[in-house]
Amino acid sequence: MGPYNWAMSRPAVVLLSGGMDSATAAAVARRDGFTVHALTARYGQRHAAELEAARRVAAALGVASHVVVDVDLRAIGGSALTADVAVPVHRSLDEIGTSVPVTYVPARNTVLLALALGYAETLGAFDLVIGANALDYSGYPDCRPAYLEAFERLANLATKAAVEGRGTFRVHAPLLALTKAQIIALGRELGVDYALTSTCYQPDAAGRACGACDACLLRLKGFRELGLTDPAAYR
Amino acid sequence: MGPYNWAMSRPAVVLLSGGMDSATAAAVARRDGFTVHALTARYGQRHAAELEAARRVAAALGVASHVVVDVDLRAIGGSALTADVAVPVHRSLDEIGTSVPVTYVPARNTVLLALALGYAETLGAFDLVIGANALDYSGYPDCRPAYLEAFERLANLATKAAVEGRGTFRVHAPLLALTKAQIIALGRELGVDYALTSTCYQPDAAGRACGACDACLLRLKGFRELGLTDPAAYR
Repeated sequence: MGPYNWAMSRPAVVLLSGGMDSATAAAVARRDGFTVHALTARYGQRHAAELEAARRVAAALGVASHVVVDVDLRAIGGSALTADVAVPVHRSLDEIGTSVPVTYVPARNTVLLALALGYAETLGAFDLVIGANALDYSGYPDCRPAYLEAFERLANLATKAAVEGRGTFRVHAPLLALTKAQIIALGRELGVDYALTSTCYQPDAAGRACGACDACLLRLKGFRELGLTDPAAYR
Repeated sequence: MGPYNWAMSRPAVVLLSGGMDSATAAAVARRDGFTVHALTARYGQRHAAELEAARRVAAALGVASHVVVDVDLRAIGGSALTADVAVPVHRSLDEIGTSVPVTYVPARNTVLLALALGYAETLGAFDLVIGANALDYSGYPDCRPAYLEAFERLANLATKAAVEGRGTFRVHAPLLALTKAQIIALGRELGVDYALTSTCYQPDAAGRACGACDACLLRLKGFRELGLTDPAAYR
């Protein structure tokens, strides 16, 4: 088999949250010839709807494997998503500040990428895929290109596989420079069904989105810019 | 208050496993004037004795806080410490190879340091302390100086605190260049009671060490080199 076919069977670990960004990133990885192994972290977040969405998205993608790792970030506190702090509700996008929001989870992407790295090492994979986005990124520091490059560097020093010279880790962030509208357009091209995804910071018991949190506002704006209706359920 | 007193009250997050290295690293941090906040990860390891040891060590040190974070690394597999793989038993130290052992947990230190980073951010701390050791390190790639420097660099790109310019993260590995014998001598000077610590990869139900795994052999060698008897219980 030539290099093209070899590339076709190359495994990648994709961080799958159940949101629209990670679903799109997974679809890009599949398009680029990777065999997708999904990893979802159950990090004590209040919205279990995201986990259900991750399972639906993984099934729709036809992933090679999907592991759910429990990591209880509530013990270290500090976030409206894991602690008992109110999620801010904005009336419009203009109210979303440029400062880091209280929905920021301390060191979240570092924990998630570390788990992805461990799973990659177990699988013999060298490619990590994350749906990080530096434009509509809501002020999270661990979504910036310099951060992702630093993690890639770390991965190549951290692991048995790297020490033994069996490969070089790469962190892929295919959505990094895209707007939410561009992400949605790309995902639709690749067949992503956004009705399966969950983005809201505070969905109700039936998994329906609030339409008012930062995540909902950014998502709705993306669909609006494309002249589309978001297929997700809102309450 | 002058800078000395300010330094006295500076908080540090210390990774505390319950083993002798992390207990010693915590004692060094206390000696150096840090207020010690301990973090123990319950990562699905088979030896709960380590957790009990971590609680005893934290109490003996008089830490300011001690959080236990559940992170189930069994889901990502790949290690004799978390999966159903036999722990190797050696008859002598000569049999411990220079290759990475099967007790290696994929990306363990990256996950642990990520959790410490998150807790530090919640506390407003900028100092992370790990008992990593590059000499008697049993072949773990994520105990090397270059790895720890890469994590420090990552931490300063990953966090809200760093982005907002409130401080610079430092990763302290005070035992990095010490032999096990030197670690024990240092800890005894600082009042560490090694009877409280648990090092064995496969302790029995009463928490007694096997005396035959890599970790036990390295520990026993350290005490022997000092002409001392290990106060821990062996079966």
